[in-house]
Amino acid sequence: MDRADVVVVGAGYAGLCAARALRAVGREVAVLEASGRVGGRVLTDRIAGDWVIDLGAQWISGAHTRFAALVEEYGAETYAAPSNGANLLVEGAVRRPFVGARPPLPPLVLVVLAQALWRIERLAARIDLARPWTTPGADRLDAMTAATWLRRNLPERRARNLAEVMIGEELCVDVGSVSMLAVLTTIRAAGGVEGGVTAETVTRLFVDGADGPAHSIAAELGDALRLDTPVTSIRQVPEGLSVGGEFGEVRAAQVIVALPPALAGRITYDPPLPAARDHLTQRMPMGSVLKAFAVYERPFWRDDRLTGQALNLHDPVPVTFDATRPGGPGCLGALVPGRAAHRLAALPAAERRAMIVGSLVRAFGPAARDPIDWREKVWADDPYSRGGYGAFFPPGVLTTIGSTLRQPIGAIHWAGSETATEWAGYIEGAIRSGERAAAEVLAASRDATVG
Amino acid sequence: MDRADVVVVGAGYAGLCAARALRAVGREVAVLEASGRVGGRVLTDRIAGDWVIDLGAQWISGAHTRFAALVEEYGAETYAAPSNGANLLVEGAVRRPFVGARPPLPPLVLVVLAQALWRIERLAARIDLARPWTTPGADRLDAMTAATWLRRNLPERRARNLAEVMIGEELCVDVGSVSMLAVLTTIRAAGGVEGGVTAETVTRLFVDGADGPAHSIAAELGDALRLDTPVTSIRQVPEGLSVGGEFGEVRAAQVIVALPPALAGRITYDPPLPAARDHLTQRMPMGSVLKAFAVYERPFWRDDRLTGQALNLHDPVPVTFDATRPGGPGCLGALVPGRAAHRLAALPAAERRAMIVGSLVRAFGPAARDPIDWREKVWADDPYSRGGYGAFFPPGVLTTIGSTLRQPIGAIHWAGSETATEWAGYIEGAIRSGERAAAEVLAASRDATVG
Repeated sequence: MDRADVVVVGAGYAGLCAARALRAVGREVAVLEASGRVGGRVLTDRIAGDWVIDLGAQWISGAHTRFAALVEEYGAETYAAPSNGANLLVEGAVRRPFVGARPPLPPLVLVVLAQALWRIERLAARIDLARPWTTPGADRLDAMTAATWLRRNLPERRARNLAEVMIGEELCVDVGSVSMLAVLTTIRAAGGVEGGVTAETVTRLFVDGADGPAHSIAAELGDALRLDTPVTSIRQVPEGLSVGGEFGEVRAAQVIVALPPALAGRITYDPPLPAARDHLTQRMPMGSVLKAFAVYERPFWRDDRLTGQALNLHDPVPVTFDATRPGGPGCLGALVPGRAAHRLAALPAAERRAMIVGSLVRAFGPAARDPIDWREKVWADDPYSRGGYGAFFPPGVLTTIGSTLRQPIGAIHWAGSETATEWAGYIEGAIRSGERAAAEVLAASRDATVG
Repeated sequence: MDRADVVVVGAGYAGLCAARALRAVGREVAVLEASGRVGGRVLTDRIAGDWVIDLGAQWISGAHTRFAALVEEYGAETYAAPSNGANLLVEGAVRRPFVGARPPLPPLVLVVLAQALWRIERLAARIDLARPWTTPGADRLDAMTAATWLRRNLPERRARNLAEVMIGEELCVDVGSVSMLAVLTTIRAAGGVEGGVTAETVTRLFVDGADGPAHSIAAELGDALRLDTPVTSIRQVPEGLSVGGEFGEVRAAQVIVALPPALAGRITYDPPLPAARDHLTQRMPMGSVLKAFAVYERPFWRDDRLTGQALNLHDPVPVTFDATRPGGPGCLGALVPGRAAHRLAALPAAERRAMIVGSLVRAFGPAARDPIDWREKVWADDPYSRGGYGAFFPPGVLTTIGSTLRQPIGAIHWAGSETATEWAGYIEGAIRSGERAAAEVLAASRDATVG
């Protein structure tokens, strides 16, 4: 049996940053990670030539100040995401290049789309990120799906399709599954429509992969980090909490669970969690996303002055992007969110690849037909993530039990990107949540000492 | 280490009936139950004088043929639920008695309500219970909450309130949280609007509690039933499956998990469950219900020719009923579903009781003010049920991953009332699901033998 001041469950960016903050003020920390690696939903893989690809979260934007601080501290190198040239809007066999954020649709369609985005922006601006359920009209917005809102406010089919693709790509969930209040909260937490739903602020990628700072923190943690250590129970004991699993147990005065709520709910708690917190873990499932990369000798689409970004309105692969490292082989990334991810995940690997490559060919031409390498990740299959990018709120959850999201239960504190008030679902949110949980733990133990 | 032909996880009616069916054909079965009792979401308690009350499921209707067969076989005594007199419709300080199923509302309100119920009946009639996602218009009905459908189809506020109360009481979930397709499926699975949403077919209660047959089956099982045996893992091993927990392990060729999906998802599976099945366990949460009983010297409301049934449109306690046993003390039951259950559960016990009693006084007068006894159960607090009556489908789940609900994973089969095609959420559904899973297990092992 081991001891620590604080046990952190999970070594994604949230857990790592919580541990780092606690050690910085002299706390003894044990970080228990179920899988054999750090990073959580950040996962960097390598292709021939030792070039990296990020199978999980990968972007950093100018607004990601805490992530930027880590990047600065640990010296990770970034480069501007390729954006020279034209994006593509693909509808069936028709592809239309466009520059900037305004897709090439008829003026009427653009007008109704702009109106709807303006309404969304106005509604999102009202959200109190710390307490979205206090937003005026929250009950009504939470009692409808985003699909319902879009049907009412975007009666024009193509404009609605485009909005569905954008929201689906942002949250990795179908508009028919997610609460409109939750969509507004996510958009607000990511800086509004411009910051969140368009690609404007998504600006830099990592030369050596987005997990670089995570590995640097892991190296600092040394023995305090234990991989392959799945936690299955958190029990109250006379001297605090016992965090256990097949590995044995670690005892601590305080615990930070840095997992998405659904996975936190699979731990056995003794005493059991209060009803409302337990129901949050039942009612805040993970989104679903398949991320795939097709590797080519060179980024051939740049010859046609294309960015590699395509929005596809009728395809299983609604979003593609250029993930080519500077000087590296051409690399096209594809994101498949929501039910399409489940549908593709159920296919044999070769069929799935053929389907995604077919989509790349429709967007970028026959040169996309024969990738020299291929990588993919079905995040819902990952036993220690069980989905991605993040968890989402189905209708009725935020206004009923949303307040339990960050509320500590005794000496158990909750971190993870889902608990962030800003940039929830992003690496930035994960980092902020870990730092917030660490501060909470310190304040609580200070109170206990003073008390 | 122990062995059995089949391990059944969970000793609610589903698990017990699966085990019973398997033993009837000579299979060796081990039933592992996490709690210290059988019955699951059926829980009979006793009050002074040894009179029983059912804190969980309690009704049997004429259409519950499999439950009736058990009742017949084990000799449980039932009595007609008290229905002499008038029901009450309570709106704030105003209470209106009414006889039968038609509440005393202005003719216009009744007309729009009847129209909406007729539309619901017509939509429900189209549902293929084995595959609700194949229903014409399924995608659209699944992409909206029941709240959205009611707002569109019942613009009259009082009629809508009444429909919300009826649906809430049937599913223990707010209309703003549940898929309209799921509501239609539930109604169809319970015999249509008349059978499911009104009280017409809910006709008999158990003199000695609804758990009688469960205890009879448990007695037959003898040592094959192990209480206080929480299962935390199901692992593939060379000779089949190992079902484990702190108790040790039991090995078997086949396993029936007779738990609601959310609780089944808290077991660790090795190999891990496929993505779609795992997501079902994340996306099919439990409803929430608080059930309370106020006990009085005698059923005083009968003096006023009241049935004890009240529908309350503006109260935290929307539904009450008479649970008096023949010759026993007066007993009023109260059901609080959905978010109101969470709100009440968060209050101190005395305050919660005062609130519910206040509601009984508004319906049945000052004689309700001082119950001589009190019992209540917050089902979301029960660590081995974590909600009730059953699980529900938020929008977008049925049409995306609904098909995984009954699909065996290798030699793991799924039972539980949620998996029933008819009477899902009822004891009848639990029994049918257990018998179906047992048949499935027998067919699979026969195939394996023949193969």
